[in-house]
Amino acid sequence: MAETVFDKIIRKEIPADIVYEDEQTLAFKDINPQAPTHVLVIPKKQIETIADINESDAPLIGQLFTTAAQIAENLGLAEDGYRLVINHGERGGQTVQHLHIHILGGRAMTWPPG
Amino acid sequence: MAETVFDKIIRKEIPADIVYEDEQTLAFKDINPQAPTHVLVIPKKQIETIADINESDAPLIGQLFTTAAQIAENLGLAEDGYRLVINHGERGGQTVQHLHIHILGGRAMTWPPG
Repeated sequence: MAETVFDKIIRKEIPADIVYEDEQTLAFKDINPQAPTHVLVIPKKQIETIADINESDAPLIGQLFTTAAQIAENLGLAEDGYRLVINHGERGGQTVQHLHIHILGGRAMTWPPG
Repeated sequence: MAETVFDKIIRKEIPADIVYEDEQTLAFKDINPQAPTHVLVIPKKQIETIADINESDAPLIGQLFTTAAQIAENLGLAEDGYRLVINHGERGGQTVQHLHIHILGGRAMTWPPG
């Protein structure tokens, strides 16, 4: 599997504005924010896309989303609300081939979601 | 916790265009589709919002997302791509107080995601 810029961020080879880190997870600010708060939550494990996960990944994926919800709360977004977005493939708008959850908040998100 | 329309759909008390069902999960078409394919994936367990989940819910949440990815593939969306969206609270745009994952595909999704 090809390395992405996210692997370099995980290894601290390139800088990022990190808001959370544990053994399995890293979260940092999106460099092209689409809302006042826009953070990416990624697994440190190299998973290319949400479409690649299977039943054996369920514990990791469960941990990733529960951590994302906790990060959103830590960022002060839980009371007013926020949106989580996961893109897969060209029509989904996935630009980095490493699974990532977008957390967007700090403004009213509109519908449709893109 | 207050019941929602989704509990009635789970019990088949009101109709829905169901595309997938297992013991823990139900998926059905959104009645106000925002893309050619727009499906909601919900846990049968009453969880109000993604913000309510904690570590003990991780296995259920992991299963929910791996099932959502499988449903997207079954719907023929995996090759061209799709977007998953989870809304929490007013600013996120959550309209039904029962956790649900939106699967949107069949067109190019734009950015920002709402």
